[in-house]
Formats: sequence, structure tokens, C-alpha cells
Amino acid sequence: MLKTTIIGGSGYTGGELLRLLLFHPEIEIVQVTSRRKLGEYVYQTHPNLRGLTKLKFTAPDDLHPVDILFLALPHGAAQKRIAEYAAAAKIIVDLSADFRLKDAAAYEKWYGKPHAAPDWLGKFTYGLAELHRAELQSAQYISGVGCNATAVNLALLPLLQADLLDTARPVIAEVKVGSSEGGAEPNPGAHHAERSHIARTYAAYGHRHTAEVIQESGLADVTLTMTSVDMVRGALATVHGWVRPGVALKDLWKAYRAAAAANPFLRVVKERRGVYRVPEPKILAGSNYADLGFDLDPESGHVVSICAIDNLMKGAAGSAVQALNLALGFEETLGLEFPGLHPI
Amino acid sequence: MLKTTIIGGSGYTGGELLRLLLFHPEIEIVQVTSRRKLGEYVYQTHPNLRGLTKLKFTAPDDLHPVDILFLALPHGAAQKRIAEYAAAAKIIVDLSADFRLKDAAAYEKWYGKPHAAPDWLGKFTYGLAELHRAELQSAQYISGVGCNATAVNLALLPLLQADLLDTARPVIAEVKVGSSEGGAEPNPGAHHAERSHIARTYAAYGHRHTAEVIQESGLADVTLTMTSVDMVRGALATVHGWVRPGVALKDLWKAYRAAAAANPFLRVVKERRGVYRVPEPKILAGSNYADLGFDLDPESGHVVSICAIDNLMKGAAGSAVQALNLALGFEETLGLEFPGLHPI
Amino acid sequence: MLKTTIIGGSGYTGGELLRLLLFHPEIEIVQVTSRRKLGEYVYQTHPNLRGLTKLKFTAPDDLHPVDILFLALPHGAAQKRIAEYAAAAKIIVDLSADFRLKDAAAYEKWYGKPHAAPDWLGKFTYGLAELHRAELQSAQYISGVGCNATAVNLALLPLLQADLLDTARPVIAEVKVGSSEGGAEPNPGAHHAERSHIARTYAAYGHRHTAEVIQESGLADVTLTMTSVDMVRGALATVHGWVRPGVALKDLWKAYRAAAAANPFLRVVKERRGVYRVPEPKILAGSNYADLGFDLDPESGHVVSICAIDNLMKGAAGSAVQALNLALGFEETLGLEFPGLHPI
Amino acid sequence: MLKTTIIGGSGYTGGELLRLLLFHPEIEIVQVTSRRKLGEYVYQTHPNLRGLTKLKFTAPDDLHPVDILFLALPHGAAQKRIAEYAAAAKIIVDLSADFRLKDAAAYEKWYGKPHAAPDWLGKFTYGLAELHRAELQSAQYISGVGCNATAVNLALLPLLQADLLDTARPVIAEVKVGSSEGGAEPNPGAHHAERSHIARTYAAYGHRHTAEVIQESGLADVTLTMTSVDMVRGALATVHGWVRPGVALKDLWKAYRAAAAANPFLRVVKERRGVYRVPEPKILAGSNYADLGFDLDPESGHVVSICAIDNLMKGAAGSAVQALNLALGFEETLGLEFPGLHPI
Repeated sequence: MLKTTIIGGSGYTGGELLRLLLFHPEIEIVQVTSRRKLGEYVYQTHPNLRGLTKLKFTAPDDLHPVDILFLALPHGAAQKRIAEYAAAAKIIVDLSADFRLKDAAAYEKWYGKPHAAPDWLGKFTYGLAELHRAELQSAQYISGVGCNATAVNLALLPLLQADLLDTARPVIAEVKVGSSEGGAEPNPGAHHAERSHIARTYAAYGHRHTAEVIQESGLADVTLTMTSVDMVRGALATVHGWVRPGVALKDLWKAYRAAAAANPFLRVVKERRGVYRVPEPKILAGSNYADLGFDLDPESGHVVSICAIDNLMKGAAGSAVQALNLALGFEETLGLEFPGLHPI
Repeated sequence: MLKTTIIGGSGYTGGELLRLLLFHPEIEIVQVTSRRKLGEYVYQTHPNLRGLTKLKFTAPDDLHPVDILFLALPHGAAQKRIAEYAAAAKIIVDLSADFRLKDAAAYEKWYGKPHAAPDWLGKFTYGLAELHRAELQSAQYISGVGCNATAVNLALLPLLQADLLDTARPVIAEVKVGSSEGGAEPNPGAHHAERSHIARTYAAYGHRHTAEVIQESGLADVTLTMTSVDMVRGALATVHGWVRPGVALKDLWKAYRAAAAANPFLRVVKERRGVYRVPEPKILAGSNYADLGFDLDPESGHVVSICAIDNLMKGAAGSAVQALNLALGFEETLGLEFPGLHPI
Repeated sequence: MLKTTIIGGSGYTGGELLRLLLFHPEIEIVQVTSRRKLGEYVYQTHPNLRGLTKLKFTAPDDLHPVDILFLALPHGAAQKRIAEYAAAAKIIVDLSADFRLKDAAAYEKWYGKPHAAPDWLGKFTYGLAELHRAELQSAQYISGVGCNATAVNLALLPLLQADLLDTARPVIAEVKVGSSEGGAEPNPGAHHAERSHIARTYAAYGHRHTAEVIQESGLADVTLTMTSVDMVRGALATVHGWVRPGVALKDLWKAYRAAAAANPFLRVVKERRGVYRVPEPKILAGSNYADLGFDLDPESGHVVSICAIDNLMKGAAGSAVQALNLALGFEETLGLEFPGLHPI
Repeated sequence: MLKTTIIGGSGYTGGELLRLLLFHPEIEIVQVTSRRKLGEYVYQTHPNLRGLTKLKFTAPDDLHPVDILFLALPHGAAQKRIAEYAAAAKIIVDLSADFRLKDAAAYEKWYGKPHAAPDWLGKFTYGLAELHRAELQSAQYISGVGCNATAVNLALLPLLQADLLDTARPVIAEVKVGSSEGGAEPNPGAHHAERSHIARTYAAYGHRHTAEVIQESGLADVTLTMTSVDMVRGALATVHGWVRPGVALKDLWKAYRAAAAANPFLRVVKERRGVYRVPEPKILAGSNYADLGFDLDPESGHVVSICAIDNLMKGAAGSAVQALNLALGFEETLGLEFPGLHPI
């Protein structure tokens, strides 16, 4: 059993990571840190783990050497102590935004301040197995992914890999998100009485995850428009673009099927009947699947590519464990078998 | 037009009061105070009022003399300055818990500290028109009502007025409540991700509103058990008791119909068909109705009396305006005509 | 008092119409028809009207002459009997899709069959006051509006009236809708267990309301992409387009403020602080407001225009009453004063 | 691998059973029947199973011999063909209400018609491991459990096993339920627009599951009062009774801890801090846990016992698999390890 420590385990991503690793057959959690919940049982914060673990939150100050270090800290924290963390474990998986971008200038543009450890940016592999499977197999430092970026990047994947998209035209990604995305900290806008039954387009453009989409897709003109809706988990990207001249619906079918065939967590959802004809985050809670759908207006070439994920799984902890499995030489799907629930 | 000031208008009850008074044909709001939102437009806090008023929140320190003073402060605040408030207006309506109980000892027992102005307790009339209509017609100082207490007191009203209840046996009131009841302040338990889809029996017994039920019903053995459910507005009291020997279903019909006939905001809801056969808070949002239902197990004499209200209306601002209408000699229903929406 | 009959009053739009007309100071409902609910009290279907009316549903066969006939029938029904209806009332307001399009060929294209009364298409005025105020003042036959079309048309209104949009480029309207839009008939996809917590992009393009947007906006290349989310009432249109070269944010401010100044039910919502900084359908339930917001990416000229409405009010019954008020010479806002609730 | 067939696999309980059995290490599904969905892939009805199985629904007419037959049919169907089913498999697990009651007279009283196979009633073991563990270890015919009955029976278990309850006094069980309990069939009351945000006490007394509580608890005077609330999965029983004279809170602690120690799926949830201080169905979706809490009013002896479950798991498919594990000599928890999600 490989030993691991989770730094910053009291947030929603940390909790999901705990759930996955407690059931992972090859990994043992030896320590979970949280300054704010110091000394409390982890199940008091993550009540679904009651009876499964006696772990308590410890201080993050003296780290025992372990095989794998997971960093689930607020954005900006990991980059300040990355050398120290690297001394404590051979493999690091950072779930924050700190090491997602390769380019220090892009980091400064999108995050509004210089990166504290720009030399480390090149050492990390972007932890999305669907885009970096080969690299991850020899990765030592793995960056987590932005949940919204992941929904958009996976919606774009079949179109880009099959070279169907007219990349000279704009791409508009409408992303619908749940309340867990904003984190567990209480704030006025997250109050149940204010956050229930909403459809709130809180960012028309400029969301930070755009940087990850630009980096990973290579697209120059791409916008993420963010709308909060009444769900707890889940992100749905409805991505609009235009196909190259001559591209037909059958080309899309081929491209999406190829993507699903090559990736164990991608599924094509495009049915003619039944309730679940298109991808929906609703049924993905707790699962690592990314469901893909598409449609094409043959008159205009307007293509709509859809990707649904659980933001805490494929959009965070699930992708991190999947990437780690690759780095460790395990089966990619190990510990990620839960299929989701219906109804829910 | 009578002039009024609302002290503490930034909470949910204050906002509902503002909505009602802006449309009240005989009352004009001259001032709304809030220390925390000082200088901001009230519509920034209460977005449904955008375009309807240019009022800004002012400091509560220098009060202009007005006809009516509404106090919508946190519990414990009004009792400290009641003499000062009384100097600023002839009529006071306090929506907090400060002047609901007649008995200073009961106040101390349920609220955990001595009352700061015990002499004033006797001057206030409990502002539930269905129980104190005559007194309210000559009231100068009106106390608001507890929302849960109101749902229970109105569920009990037909049974007690017709003397059908075996008052020697216990009464158990199961109250289901929405998230607006806890107020607008963010806290971990009110976070959308934690508060959605819940059924949380957060208080088995001992809820403070029990004191109001004891006072108004005269019952000695009554328990309020509180369960939070996934709704924003609304309180549903499902009240269990036992009828006196010989009481039959037809006696209940007579008692509930009499209650509805005597009170413009009480309705009996007991249908044999359709979706809405029983009282439900869902369709009462924004309305001042209290819907009553009942059932009787003839074998055991177990009676179940149900009352649904909007906690911010009949359970707070609506009852306050209704009581004030009586005190001012207006039609009891004035400004309270909105019937609620369906579907919602 | 003018007399009116509502044909087909058992659906959600019919219910909302009933609520509005029962409180309208100049109109009296004399008859409400429903074949399916024949003989039942209307409050059994529309429980918010309990205690407000003793009306029962009658058969639609023998119509008494009235001043105004509201048709709230399923699509396709009104066109078959329009001559008969016209004989029964001087003024007709049809809330279905039957008389929204001017062009019989467009009707056939979007609705999949020839129109049964093409000669009548030209007699109807499209009932959106913001676009046809002058015509409505002398209208005898008024067509209702599509709810999604209305959200999109009003989002486009400031841009088009101020000529800010590059109409040669595509317009993509992402519309988020609630469950009341699909009507009251039970179906598998509307089941609470399937419809809760969803983000379901059920139509990538080709929604029928597109025809109304093309007709009213004059745009050639416009797509409506429909996503169901977890709310009961409400439609939010997030409309993407590109401004003409040189158009800046201040030009948008001017255009949106001008639109709000000219129309009593349009409001601009674009705040820097607070929870409600952008338009949201959540707070509009029961109100006739259409809230407008916008943002502009100055680098690309990508403009995002947002419109939030209550689909049953501004998107159906509310616009219909507003249009009728104009036709009858009443104040445009008569009977439509309810401001909505917060929180809800 | 033991072979199994599921008769009637298109409902919610059938779907949950499929999910559990597809991951059960000792059982292989060879056939799933559904007349209504004949020929369709099971993942079209249960979308969480997409990619996990190629099974299609078959006709229930010619049954292949298998080791285990699961019956997930509507109530009343299994009893008509039980002899035929018994010929097809050695072990039968029936999830309907047909074989839960031991007494044919009780069946007729609560279900309104005579039982079609009264001789079979005595052959079935009631499939709640917490009450019948020893019997289940040699059971051939296992009955499923009522979800609401299970929540109440497990809330009562610690009190009855430790003999703390005054069984001469009435017991009132207030049960809050989600929308999956009513099944997948569309109906007007299950429509999202009608079923959202509700608190609907739809049955004051007389719910059929009462019969199972009477049978299993031995209590003479017990009422189930049912309230629908806005959740999809989950049942919460808040059970009111009175303890015997002299029973104190520490006796309850002892009894509940003993129950949890003796049963792998029972947990005590009674915390002084944090959000999750009491049992809540919210975090149990997909898990087989039954969380227990309690409180005692020392003045009156009024005890409130709380049990939260997932109605489709511990209240149906989960308990069935748990009971089957016992009958087959497997570890009781086999295939039931999923701990639930947080947040959700």
C-alpha cells in the first residue's frame, strides 16, 4: 500500500478525495490536514465517511514523508511552499489552480498577480488523462484541472482531435454550474434562500478557467459564460462553434465514438427516445464519467457540443485519482468504478 | 396617509414588510434603517422592489416622529430601547420575540436571560388577529408572532374554540420549515450545498416558540418538533392530539368551517380529489392565508390538525399588517390581498 | 366592467390569466371553460384561487357573447374555430402559437403543417407591448407571445433599437427554462424524480419560438438553444452576438437605459455589489417585469445580453393583459402591479 | 458466480437492484424482464448503467432456471404466480408488499382484498437483517421491506430491544418522504411544477406500511403520518413515544450504541457541533446505512427517535441484497459498500 497525505482536506474537493482514497485498493491515507478543523474527526466535516475512518484533521506543519502528497488548498497557497512539499513526497498531485498553466505570463494575466514559483510550472503535467495520458504515465508532479475547463475541454476534444472545427471562428461555451463549485465557505450568495431555483449568469466572459481552455485546446477565440443553476454537484458545458465546410453529422458521430472508444470515462449520449437523450450532470454525481453529446445545424454549420460532468469528480478529485493511477502504473479506472445513481 | 418608519429593514421580515407597506393604500414609508446596509438603496437588498422605491437605508439613530414605528430588529434589541421608540411614535409594532410573552418569568425560562423591560410586557397585544381581534382594535403596542407558533396556534384554534380536544393528553406539533426562517445571515448550515434536499429534525423539543403556544393555547403539555425541509418560504404544522370522548369527524368539520367563516384569512382545505387536497405552504408564498386541514382516527381518537402558512407573511409581516389594520380601524385585509401563485 | 370568457382555463397559462383577471379592476370573468375539468371548481385546479371565486369550469360549446374572449387552448386548436370565436366577442386574445406568425409559409415550416386559417394571420397583432405598443392601441385581435421568444426578443430590443448589433454575424440565444413551461400534463420527463436538479440541453437548435424571434427581430441567423434547469417558473435568455465596430460599453448603457425608460416593465439590472447583480427569473415569479443586463468583451466585440422573465407572466398571461390594457385604452400596467417576492 | 433473473426491472427499485447486482462479486444477472420496455437496453431506462451492461429487457414469460429470482413487480402481482416463480429458482427475493405480512387477515385488512396465496405467507422471512438476521441465514424465500416501515422499525429497534419504551402509550411516527417513493409512473401530483418545494401531509394515518410496523414491533397503538417533501431519495422517520418511568438519556445512549455495535449498517448520529448533528437522508443516497438519533424530554418522558435511510437502498434494494447475502452465507455487507456522497 502506498502512503498518502492530504493537505487541506476540509473542503469539498478534499472530502471527495478522501472518499475515493478510503476505498482505493492500493493507497492508504496516513494524514489529513486542516488548520480550521484541527483535532476534529474528518467525518464531522464529511458526514458520508462516518464509521469508515477514525482519521482526525492534523496541523499541516510537520509532514511525515509519504509516497504521494495531495494538495487541496485554496488557490495561491501551494505555489508558496511547493519546494517544501516536494521534499516530503516523491509524487505530488495539486488540485488548486497553481500549476495548471504552463506560462507564467498567462498565469499573471488571468490570476492578477505574478506566480510565486514560475520555475515549477514546467514540471507539472496537466492532469486530464484524456489529453495527456502518455505524459501522465511518467509524471511526478500532476496538476489538477478546473472543473469548468474540463467540461469545455472534453466537449471540444472530439471536434479538435478529428479536426472538424473551424478554429478561425469564435467558440462560445455556456457552462451551467452547481453550488458546490463555489466551495464550502458560507457567503450571502450561497445562502439556500438566495441560491435556490436560480438561473444566474454571473460571468458573461473572463472566467479564469478560460485560460486552461485556451492552453489545452489551442483555440484563440473562446469564451466561457457561466450560469449558476439549482443543483449541488455538476457542470454542463454547452459549447457553440462552427464546423469546417463540408463536415456532416456522420463525421461528428465518428469523432465522438472514437473519443469514447479511446477513453474509459467518456460516453456518447445521443438517444432518440426516453428521458435521458442528452448528457446530464444529474445522474453523474459521484461518478467519473464525462458524457458527451452533439448536434449540428446543417444549414449554418453551427455545431453544439455538450459535456456533462460531476465537478467534484471528473472536474476535480476523480480526474486527479485517474491521473495518479496512470502515473503509478495502475489501471486507469482503479477506485473510480462507482457508476452514479438514478433517480437522484 | 399615515407615516411609518421601519427600524431594521434589511432582513427577510423587513423586506416583506417593505413590500406590503409600499402597496398599502393608507400608509407611507418615510424611513427605513439598517446599520449594516447604511446608504444603500433598499432594492439592492430586496431586489423585488427595484423600480418601486428610491428609499435608502438610513442610520437608526435620529428617528423622525411618525405615526407608526415598525421594529424588525434581532431578538433582544427592541426591549433595550423601547421607551425611546415609544417616544417617536404613537403606535409600535414589534416583529421580534421581545414582547410576545406576557410573563417575564416565562421569558427568562425560554430565552435564557431576564427581560430588559418587563413592565412593557403587559402593554403589548399579541398580534394574531384570529386570537385577539377585539383587543387589537384598541391596541397601541402590538407584538409580532413567532412563525412556527402561529402555524401551531392556528392548527389548534378550531379544536380549542369548539372544545374538542382532550387537553389532559399531550399535544405534539411537528413543524416543517423553510430556509428563510433562519434569516438572511450566511452560516454553514444554510449553504445551498448543505441545505438542499434535506429533512433535518434539528430540534426534538424545546423550541422557543413553544412558549407562545403554551401562552396562547393554554395547553400544559405541548411539544414543537422542528424539521427543516427544502423550501425557502413556508411552515407546515402537523399537530397530533386526542379528541374528547364522543367527538366525531362531523364535529371537526363544523369547528373548522366555523373558524374559517369567522376569519378572512383562514381556509379549510380538505378535498377528496385533485393534487391539492391538504394544506400546503407551497402555494401560499406571498399570501396571508393560513390553510387548515384535519383528520381523525375514529378508533383511537387521534386527531391530526394541519396548518400551512407563509412564515414571512402570516407568520410575520402579514400578521403584523393585519393587526395594525385592526388597530387603525381599517379593513382587516387591506394591502394583504395577494392570493399566492400556482404553480410555483 | 367588461365581460370576458376564458376558453381553456385549466392549464398553467389559463390559471395565471384567471389570477390576473380576478383582480383586474375593469374586467369581470363570466365563464371559464375546460372539457377535462367540466363541472369542477376552478380553485380545485388552481389552488391559489380558493376562496376568491366560485367559478366552475363549463363546456366550451355554447359561448355567451362577451366583450373579450381569451383563448388559452393547446396549439392548433384556436385556428380551427377562429371564425366562431370572432362571432362571440369583439376582442380576442389568443395565447397559443396559432396567430403569432404573420407568414403562413413560416408557420408551415416551423409547425410542420399548413395553417387552418391563413387569412386570419394578418388580422392579429403580436402582443408584445414593447415592440408593438402603437398597433396594440387599436388592435382587435391580439396574439400571445412565446415565452422563450419574449426573453430573447427583449434581450435584443436595446441592441436593435440603438442599432448596436452587427446583424451580419450570428446570434446565439441560450435559454434556461423551468418546468411550468412544458405545461401541466404529466409525462415521464416532468416527473419530479427525473426533472429535479437537472441541466438538460434538450434542444440545440430548431425550437419553434425561433420563428417569432426571426419575425420580430429581423435577424437572419439566430439560434435558440434550450436548457431545462431546476425551477418551476422563469426563463433566462443569455444572448450572444457581436456589436458593430466602435461600439463601447457606454453605448450599451445608453441603449439599455433608454429601453427601460420607454417601457414600464423593463428594468436594467447591472450592479457592482450585492447578490442580485444580474437579471434573475427567481425574483420575478408572479411579476410582469423583464429584467435586462449586458456585458461587452471590448477586445472581441462579443456582447452578452441577458433577459429574465416569468414565463407565465411576461412570457404569457402578463403580456396578454398588458396588450389588452393598451387595446382597451387602460393604463398599460393595470392589474399587473405585483412586484414579485424575495426571498423565494 | 450465482445466476439471477430480475422480474420487473424497469422501476426505481428494479434499477437500484440492477446497479447493486452488476457490481456484486458473487452474482451474475442473466435476465431482466419488463413488458413495457421490452427489447430496450436497460441503460435507456437506468441511465447510470450506460456502458456497464448490454442487457436488454426481455419478456417475463419463459423464465430460465436460475439460482436466485428477484421479483420487483407492482404490489399484487407476485402472489398470483408465486408457485410458478418458485419452480424457476431455489431462492426468491420479492420486493413487493405481497409477502411481508405473516397474517392473511392483516393483509386483507390493510390491502383491501384477500391474499391470493395465503399458504405462502408463512414461508417468507421478512427481509430486514437487523430484526431477522438468524432466520435469514437459512431463508429460502425472502420478503422485501416497506421503506417507511423500515425507517420506523429501525427508529424503534434500540428502544424496544432495550425495553425502554412505555408500550402502553401511543407511538406517532412522522415520516418525511421523497418523490422516488411513489414510483416512476408519471401522475399529476408527481409533476415537477407541483411536487417541488412541497411539504404535503398526504396521509394523517392509515398508511399501509403501518401493518409492517405493527407486525415487527409488536406495538398495538402506532400511527404513521406521511409528509412528502422536496427530495428525490430518502425517508426520515421522526418517531414520538414515551419512555418507561425512570429511563434517562444515558439509557438511550447505551441502547443506541448497542444497536449500532450489533449491526454493520446502523450508525448513531448525535453530535453537539457541525452541520450534520442529526440523521439526514440527504447524505445517504446510494448507501445502505440507517442513521439513528434520539432525544429525551426528561420532564415528560417524551422520547423522539429518528431514523434516516435511502428509501431505494435500506428501504428496498439494499436491504434485499443484505438479506440475500445472509441467506447465501456471504459477508452481510458484500456489494453494499458505497458510503454516500457529500455534498449532494
